[in-house]
Amino acid sequence: MVEVRDIPQPQRPQGFATIRLLLGGICNTDLELQRGYYGFAGTPGHEFVGEVVDADTQSLVGKRVVGEINLNCGNCSWCARGLGRHCPARTVLGIVQHPGAFQEFLTLPERNLHVVPDSIPDEAAVFIEPLAAACEILDQVPLSPGDEIAVLGDGKLGLLIAQVLHGHGCRVRQFGKHANKLQISRSRGIETAAAGTEPAKAFRYVVDATGSPGGLRTAVHMAEPRGTVILKSTIHGEVPIDTAPVIVDEITLIGSRCGRFEPAIELLRNREVDVTPLITDRIPLKRAADAFRTAARQGVLKVLLTTR
Amino acid sequence: MVEVRDIPQPQRPQGFATIRLLLGGICNTDLELQRGYYGFAGTPGHEFVGEVVDADTQSLVGKRVVGEINLNCGNCSWCARGLGRHCPARTVLGIVQHPGAFQEFLTLPERNLHVVPDSIPDEAAVFIEPLAAACEILDQVPLSPGDEIAVLGDGKLGLLIAQVLHGHGCRVRQFGKHANKLQISRSRGIETAAAGTEPAKAFRYVVDATGSPGGLRTAVHMAEPRGTVILKSTIHGEVPIDTAPVIVDEITLIGSRCGRFEPAIELLRNREVDVTPLITDRIPLKRAADAFRTAARQGVLKVLLTTR
Repeated sequence: MVEVRDIPQPQRPQGFATIRLLLGGICNTDLELQRGYYGFAGTPGHEFVGEVVDADTQSLVGKRVVGEINLNCGNCSWCARGLGRHCPARTVLGIVQHPGAFQEFLTLPERNLHVVPDSIPDEAAVFIEPLAAACEILDQVPLSPGDEIAVLGDGKLGLLIAQVLHGHGCRVRQFGKHANKLQISRSRGIETAAAGTEPAKAFRYVVDATGSPGGLRTAVHMAEPRGTVILKSTIHGEVPIDTAPVIVDEITLIGSRCGRFEPAIELLRNREVDVTPLITDRIPLKRAADAFRTAARQGVLKVLLTTR
Repeated sequence: MVEVRDIPQPQRPQGFATIRLLLGGICNTDLELQRGYYGFAGTPGHEFVGEVVDADTQSLVGKRVVGEINLNCGNCSWCARGLGRHCPARTVLGIVQHPGAFQEFLTLPERNLHVVPDSIPDEAAVFIEPLAAACEILDQVPLSPGDEIAVLGDGKLGLLIAQVLHGHGCRVRQFGKHANKLQISRSRGIETAAAGTEPAKAFRYVVDATGSPGGLRTAVHMAEPRGTVILKSTIHGEVPIDTAPVIVDEITLIGSRCGRFEPAIELLRNREVDVTPLITDRIPLKRAADAFRTAARQGVLKVLLTTR
């Protein structure tokens, strides 16, 4: 259940910045958290753009920032490899033991922050976190321009992934249930098709961004032998899969989560991705409960939480 | 149900050889076929060593051979890439629409055959096919000497995989339920541990060769973030998996099936793998039904079908 409360401005530990929220974005993970995923019970929110109001580094104060959501220890072997996103001691903004962004002020380590270039408006900057998650695919799988790749799902993440891969030069075919959502991709020159028409063993690469338990099975069905399926849907609970085709066709399944922010910022700066059509509604933070109800409705894409 | 019948010697199509069976090996897949896997209803058997009695290429006649089990078209893009094991038009010896090896005479294309070096006795040569399946892991995953890898399962395939990876220089830890089977690995210098003691997020590489529906879940549990799980257990039917840890920890799952025969032959020629301790019983082909019952028994490893 989402309720709005007045709480004191959070304390800022050393090395952290205090950030005033400008815009927040509601993600499916936030909706899942309400259903008990991760047992999280604090302030949700991990997609945001805000303004630094206090920090150790004075030059940060007044800057418009976005922030990587994993708060890592900085000392372990994962952090040393630049993979603090997998630090076993990490907390996660609005997901694991760190209060989220859907409040007037939030705190994050200064090293998590990226200053947003002036050319990127707030309503685009708030998409940097999910866009980074879409870009993560390119860090994990050696995709080349010209490679054919299927994207399953026409939700927020599926639409961002399709644009990122299309921008990378891949030949994307996106499958979805909603003509109006697929139209967003089609208007960018991406080929689309209706869910239910997925061909068997037809793609070397398939991304499951359906957010539904059946997505993985469909994705495996579509992958050619020795093909790769990228799992982008966090489903709460168990999913039945037939491992026989995975083994017989020697398919590779790759789980994919958060990504680096740098490529996402570059894509928005260079206007290679257009996130504006993904915004369904803007609702004030004070009415967060309404906003969550709206975000959970069928057919709705991104709901933004506004502060002014 | 397994029954033994007298049938005419099979016709040999052009490009094929007729092979007299010397020894056959019963694989778990043969047992699964009896349970309806693949809907196969002919002569089973795909692990064999035999003697060529007739062929287009006269120099093959009289030679002792083993044979790759996938009969591919030789013309498609998969065959051109050297991946005839994935040819969509393929039949498979004793598994898909091609009579198997558990008969006095079988046929296979000449190009599927490998002449067995004299230094490899029949009772080792009959293991070349499953040993090639174990070696397939090294063709799919860039394992280096010194890499730590867990092998789950102490059945026939698990024991072969442990030896292959150990011989490659990996630091193998094998988990299993049977002290006597694990002893085979321990005697080769492989570290072993009891099933149920698998540590969480401890291995960069994990092989599931349990042959049980719970194996995949355990394997995912043991893999560290960005780790790789190799699926070597063909389970008939659906397996429930929680995809959340796969996605959150960005784990890669790789299905793995048949392999090239060359590395397996080299391992046996150089005595880098010892298959003798895996032989539980030798039963004449005429008593194949008994042999299948024995092979299905708990604790039994390889049952060989003899012809003399």
